[in-house]
Amino acid sequence: MSEKQINQPLLTLLSDFGDRDVYVGVIKGVIAQINPNLTVVDLTHQISPQNIAAARFCLMNAYAYFPVGTVHVAVVDPGVGGRRRAIAVEFAQGFLVGPDNGIFSGVLSQSPALAAVELTNPNYWRTRQPSKTFHARDIFAPVGANLASGVPLKQLGREINPTDLVQLDINYCNETTTGVAGCIQYIDHFGNLVSNIPGSYVQSKIWCVQAAGLTIPGCETYTDVNVGEAIALVGSHGWVEISINSGNAHLQLQINWQDALQVLFL
Amino acid sequence: MSEKQINQPLLTLLSDFGDRDVYVGVIKGVIAQINPNLTVVDLTHQISPQNIAAARFCLMNAYAYFPVGTVHVAVVDPGVGGRRRAIAVEFAQGFLVGPDNGIFSGVLSQSPALAAVELTNPNYWRTRQPSKTFHARDIFAPVGANLASGVPLKQLGREINPTDLVQLDINYCNETTTGVAGCIQYIDHFGNLVSNIPGSYVQSKIWCVQAAGLTIPGCETYTDVNVGEAIALVGSHGWVEISINSGNAHLQLQINWQDALQVLFL
Amino acid sequence: MSEKQINQPLLTLLSDFGDRDVYVGVIKGVIAQINPNLTVVDLTHQISPQNIAAARFCLMNAYAYFPVGTVHVAVVDPGVGGRRRAIAVEFAQGFLVGPDNGIFSGVLSQSPALAAVELTNPNYWRTRQPSKTFHARDIFAPVGANLASGVPLKQLGREINPTDLVQLDINYCNETTTGVAGCIQYIDHFGNLVSNIPGSYVQSKIWCVQAAGLTIPGCETYTDVNVGEAIALVGSHGWVEISINSGNAHLQLQINWQDALQVLFL
Repeated sequence: MSEKQINQPLLTLLSDFGDRDVYVGVIKGVIAQINPNLTVVDLTHQISPQNIAAARFCLMNAYAYFPVGTVHVAVVDPGVGGRRRAIAVEFAQGFLVGPDNGIFSGVLSQSPALAAVELTNPNYWRTRQPSKTFHARDIFAPVGANLASGVPLKQLGREINPTDLVQLDINYCNETTTGVAGCIQYIDHFGNLVSNIPGSYVQSKIWCVQAAGLTIPGCETYTDVNVGEAIALVGSHGWVEISINSGNAHLQLQINWQDALQVLFL
Repeated sequence: MSEKQINQPLLTLLSDFGDRDVYVGVIKGVIAQINPNLTVVDLTHQISPQNIAAARFCLMNAYAYFPVGTVHVAVVDPGVGGRRRAIAVEFAQGFLVGPDNGIFSGVLSQSPALAAVELTNPNYWRTRQPSKTFHARDIFAPVGANLASGVPLKQLGREINPTDLVQLDINYCNETTTGVAGCIQYIDHFGNLVSNIPGSYVQSKIWCVQAAGLTIPGCETYTDVNVGEAIALVGSHGWVEISINSGNAHLQLQINWQDALQVLFL
Repeated sequence: MSEKQINQPLLTLLSDFGDRDVYVGVIKGVIAQINPNLTVVDLTHQISPQNIAAARFCLMNAYAYFPVGTVHVAVVDPGVGGRRRAIAVEFAQGFLVGPDNGIFSGVLSQSPALAAVELTNPNYWRTRQPSKTFHARDIFAPVGANLASGVPLKQLGREINPTDLVQLDINYCNETTTGVAGCIQYIDHFGNLVSNIPGSYVQSKIWCVQAAGLTIPGCETYTDVNVGEAIALVGSHGWVEISINSGNAHLQLQINWQDALQVLFL
C-alpha cells in the first residue's frame, strides 16, 4: 500500500440535512467526483434544523477523536445565500469548513484557529454558479474534498483574521459559594441530560446535583444505582450529566434543554 | 495507487428499508463478499414504504452528481416475488439496477436508456434460490456489485428493449394564460415544499406563487425575507419550492403532498 | 492492488446509539486513528435503548452475509462500567467484540465460539483510563480495529471458556399436536411481524397462521394476496412472518412484540 494512501486524510460531515432526502448522498457524489479515494465519515445529519448551538456542541465533542489532518465539513446554515461568510479554518487537529456563524466556536475555544480564509476562489467549488440554497453541495463539500486532497488552505480564498470569526452566545456555568450553577446544554438520544459544567469540577469530590426540585447523587457509572434510579455522573464527553440507569432522564424527570441545575459539594 | 483503484466505480443504494433493521447492513455484506474494495454510498433508505414516486424523484435529483460509471441500485419494490421484471439499465451516466416498476423513469426522462437487460442470469446473483421477499439482497445488490466490478451488462441476462420500461404516472405542470399550474411533488426533511414546476419557467421573471389561499413572493434565497416569512424560490434540485426562512413550510402553511399551486408572472 | 488490501477484514458496528448524536462518528474516528484503511459497515444503530434481545436477533440475522474474517463490534450495554465482562470471541465466520451480556448468544447458537478472551489488556484500548459510560469508544471499537488489523485474539486479554459466555433467556417455539406454537420475536421497519418459528417447519407443507383471532394463509410471497391483505410467509431471515401486502401488519393487525401465534398444518 502506498504511503500516500495511508496518509489520505478523512473528511467528516455534520449537518441538519436529515436522512430522508438525498442531500447527503449528493454531497458524497460531489466529493467522489473530486477524489473517489477519500474516506467520508458522517458525524451526524440529525442536528435539529437550523440549531447552530447543537451543531457547535456536537462538533466540539467529536473532533478530538479523529486523526490529525482530518477535514470537518459542518453545515447548519440558516443564513445560506445571505451575507454570512463561507470559511475554511486550519487548527492543530486539522481543518474546518462551513459557514462563519459560530458553528466552529466550540472547537476553536479548545484548540485555537491557526489560519482562516474566506472561500472566495470558485476554482475549488463544484460550479461557478452555486445554488443560493445548498452551499454544502456547491461550495463546502468540494472545498473540503480539495483540502483533504492536498490543496493548500491559502489557495481557497482571501485570508482573514482567524481571531475574528463569529462566536456563538453560549451560557457558561458559574462557581457559587456551595458549588457550581449551570444549565442543560444538550440532550442525547438516550435522554441523558448533558450540563455545561465540566467534569473537572467534581473530580475527587463528594457531590450531588439539584435540578427540578430533585437531589441526585454524584456517582461514577450507571450501575452505581438501581435500574430506574436517577444518577449524576461525568459523561463520556467530559461534562456533568444526569441519567437514569436503563431509563430516559429527559422523559422521566421532565428536565429540558436549558433548564438550570446546581452541583453541590458535600 | 493503481489506476484500477482510482477508476473503480461507486455503487449507490436507495431504498425504503429504513435504518432500524439490518437489511441495509446485510446488503453491504453481500457486496463486500463480491468485491470488498467497492465504495458504497447510501442515497437514502428512508423512502416511505412502497412509495415508488418518491424514490423516482430522489434518484432523479441525485444521479447527476456522481462520477460517470456509478452503479445505482434502487429498490422500492412492492411487487417483489411477483411478475415485475428485475432489470439493469445502461445510460450515459452509468448504470441502474432494480425492479422494472417506474423507479428509474425520472432519471431516464432526463438521460435515456442506452441498453437494458432482464436479470435472468443467476450466476451473478447471491444464490440460485433467491428469497421471495428480499431481491435487494439476493439479486439487485449482487448484480450491482458485479457491474461495478466490470461484468458487462449483457452477461447479466436477456436483452430487452430499453424504450419499453415501465413508466410511472406523474403529474406534470401546465402553462396557463397567467403563468404555470402545478402541484407539490415532494416535501423534504426541512418541510420545504418542492413543486413539479421547473425553475427555468421563472428565470429572469418577476413572479409569485399562489397556494392554499396565500400569495408568496418569488425570490432568490431564504434570507431575502425575514425569519418566519414564506418565500418561493428555485430550490437546489432546480424546481420551484415554497419555504419559510428558518421554519418548516409544510407544517406552518399546512400545504401537503400533491396540493395545487400556481406560478404567476407579474 | 496489493493482496493485503484485498484481504483486509471488514468491521461492522451494531448499537443502540441512534443517529442524532456523534457517538457513532466518534467511534469511527477512533477506528481510523488505529487503521484508516479499514472498511466500517453500520449494521444498525437504532436498536431500542438497552434492548439486548433485539440486538441479539439482528446480529444473528446479519453475520452470515459478511466475508469470513469480518469483525463484528456490537454494543448494547446497560451494564457498562459495572461488573459485566468485556469480551472478544472467535468463531468460524470471524470475530465478535462487545459486552458479555448475551448479545452474541444468537450468533453462537448457530456457529459456536472457538475461543474467547476477556478484554483485560489495555494496550489495545484507546486509553488506559476508559470512560465509565462509553466502552464502545474506549475499549470495544479499538479492540475491534486491532483485531481487524491482524492482532491475534489471545493478545487482547485473559483467555476464558468459550462455552461459558452469558446466554439470553429467549422464548423458543414448541411443536404441538396440530402445528407449532410460538411468539413474535421482532417487528421490522415495514411492520412485518417476525415469529420465533423457523421456516423449515412449513417447508413443503400446506399451512396457516392463527394470531389475534385471525387465520392467515401461509403463502410464498406478498403478491400471492391482494394489496391490503394479510399473509404468512417465510421471511428473508428464514422465520415465519406475518405481513400485509403493501401495508404494515404491526399497525393494522394490532399484533405486538411477544404476542403468541400458532402455525397450523392443513
